[in-house]
Amino acid sequence: RYGYFGKDKPEVVRLLLCNLSGCLTDGQIYVSAEGLEMVSLNTRDSMGICMLQKEGVEVIVISSIDNPIPKVMVEKLSKQIGCEIRHNVEDKLSEVDKLRKERELVWKEVAYMGNDEPDVQCLNLSGLSAVPQDATLVSRNAAKYACHSAAGRGALREFAEHILLLKKKAKSQMEQDRIPRD
Amino acid sequence: RYGYFGKDKPEVVRLLLCNLSGCLTDGQIYVSAEGLEMVSLNTRDSMGICMLQKEGVEVIVISSIDNPIPKVMVEKLSKQIGCEIRHNVEDKLSEVDKLRKERELVWKEVAYMGNDEPDVQCLNLSGLSAVPQDATLVSRNAAKYACHSAAGRGALREFAEHILLLKKKAKSQMEQDRIPRD
Amino acid sequence: RYGYFGKDKPEVVRLLLCNLSGCLTDGQIYVSAEGLEMVSLNTRDSMGICMLQKEGVEVIVISSIDNPIPKVMVEKLSKQIGCEIRHNVEDKLSEVDKLRKERELVWKEVAYMGNDEPDVQCLNLSGLSAVPQDATLVSRNAAKYACHSAAGRGALREFAEHILLLKKKAKSQMEQDRIPRD
Amino acid sequence: RYGYFGKDKPEVVRLLLCNLSGCLTDGQIYVSAEGLEMVSLNTRDSMGICMLQKEGVEVIVISSIDNPIPKVMVEKLSKQIGCEIRHNVEDKLSEVDKLRKERELVWKEVAYMGNDEPDVQCLNLSGLSAVPQDATLVSRNAAKYACHSAAGRGALREFAEHILLLKKKAKSQMEQDRIPRD
Repeated sequence: RYGYFGKDKPEVVRLLLCNLSGCLTDGQIYVSAEGLEMVSLNTRDSMGICMLQKEGVEVIVISSIDNPIPKVMVEKLSKQIGCEIRHNVEDKLSEVDKLRKERELVWKEVAYMGNDEPDVQCLNLSGLSAVPQDATLVSRNAAKYACHSAAGRGALREFAEHILLLKKKAKSQMEQDRIPRD
Repeated sequence: RYGYFGKDKPEVVRLLLCNLSGCLTDGQIYVSAEGLEMVSLNTRDSMGICMLQKEGVEVIVISSIDNPIPKVMVEKLSKQIGCEIRHNVEDKLSEVDKLRKERELVWKEVAYMGNDEPDVQCLNLSGLSAVPQDATLVSRNAAKYACHSAAGRGALREFAEHILLLKKKAKSQMEQDRIPRD
Repeated sequence: RYGYFGKDKPEVVRLLLCNLSGCLTDGQIYVSAEGLEMVSLNTRDSMGICMLQKEGVEVIVISSIDNPIPKVMVEKLSKQIGCEIRHNVEDKLSEVDKLRKERELVWKEVAYMGNDEPDVQCLNLSGLSAVPQDATLVSRNAAKYACHSAAGRGALREFAEHILLLKKKAKSQMEQDRIPRD
Repeated sequence: RYGYFGKDKPEVVRLLLCNLSGCLTDGQIYVSAEGLEMVSLNTRDSMGICMLQKEGVEVIVISSIDNPIPKVMVEKLSKQIGCEIRHNVEDKLSEVDKLRKERELVWKEVAYMGNDEPDVQCLNLSGLSAVPQDATLVSRNAAKYACHSAAGRGALREFAEHILLLKKKAKSQMEQDRIPRD
């Protein structure tokens, strides 16, 4: 008996969803009297998005209506990090579920990074889920992985490396299963 | 004998007052040669204000004349966080006392978050009072609750959760008191 | 025998000198492609300057030519903190010595806050001297007081409180010396 | 027998190469809706560059194409720190090797500061190499020296002091070798 008799689709992450405020950024919004608003991104996190995309993981960033960020800024940020940002998302669970179904994925193939109460359901349902080091308690309790890095300071990068490591393991497991055994 | 024979108005917080500089912000003011001034707000703290308002607690932010912030910026910030900001307050105690009396509240129904010497009296008088992790010693000694989070990095959110927890406890206590006992 | 027979001028600080970059600010300069430069100040430190001035201590901030900051920005900052900033100082020792002599002060009446190699001589000579928590080793070794607070995050405020405490002690000592003894 | 019979060119660093994002800066990019981008530099790091140049060490900063920074901003930063910045470098190893050969240097005379995966080869080859405290694991493992200071908060300064100390030691060794021995 030989060949690969395991699942033909190993459960590896194909889609990563991540909060904009408080995950990809540190949650700070800089405001001036003149109406200028700024947020900051970290090099390491942008690199993490890039690493995931290279390994075939789609990355979508979610900007919640609770932390309103101007649409023009969202577009600017989207270009900067090279991935889609969903703007003014009202209900995270239904949005993520819609995105998942459109791609015909099961929850085990979805990874989610959140940091607060509205993220709890997605953190529970996703195959892999994480919170930055400085996330709120309620989200920490729901996440499968708690990052050592803080939001906007490498948390997304850390989660990306975690995902890619598990992906690699799953692949090598799959290849091992293909080796004929007597 | 049955029914509710306790106080008909349990002492729960109905008004939260909070410093702008050094409580809601981290106390940093960004200055450029061109005259641009910026301050930063954190997502978690804005969420905390929102949570309090949903539970019927009014939130008013106080901007002291000691840390002058341009009026246009105060208006911008007020819109961002969705609550009133009192501008150029000279004497905190008299301002807070006026706001309290206008709402016909006793001090036990007032919560106060401060971070420095001019806040000491309000911290002492208010039913609930807190300081951010990085507040000055003199204010720490006066506050009833010392946050683990720093100013502008979730301290207000932490205090909001503390207030809401106590509010919940008071409510459940009140309901328990309504149950007839023989 | 009675009356005050001690020194008629107790050695208390009458002039505080402090670096702009790396003491009053955290040493960060924000640069944009458009030429915008920003630095940030902390509420607590501005308050510290105010406290010293109220107690009759003159405060002068020194902006070194090594860390060039545009003149317009220095003027802006000067207004913000309400004290003089010496711009483009080349040699700190000779500048401080000149300021000291103009005011007819001895070194014991001068307090100095620095953070790097060019500050070593002034840190050694001044009656009171301090470094922020994140100062370079060479300046730490020269300072009489090492702050717990970092530069631009309350270090100047901490030093101000230290100065005012010693001033108070000196005053009460002086008053005690006035009490007649047999 | 007397005179200096050792190597006539002691192996001391003559060229320092350093990443822009994540080494000289803290990796944060501030983005506004209006298209304003900002990065921040620290006084101590600029001072470190200056110290190296005074001791005859050339400093070149490398801006990778992975973390695109507008050309105008790179020019602005170059003026601010007083050294060349190579813009949009695609392959770090070949760029550094080219710079090294142009100056007729051996790898032992090159110092390198990096913070991520693309820096690993240069960190391995250079005579002296360092990473900021907050660098990624893969780069930490390749570097000969791990800074206590974080990126954009004095890491480059710390490495500069380390380089200058070793340079001084090498010089004093060389002078000792010149002393005649029987």
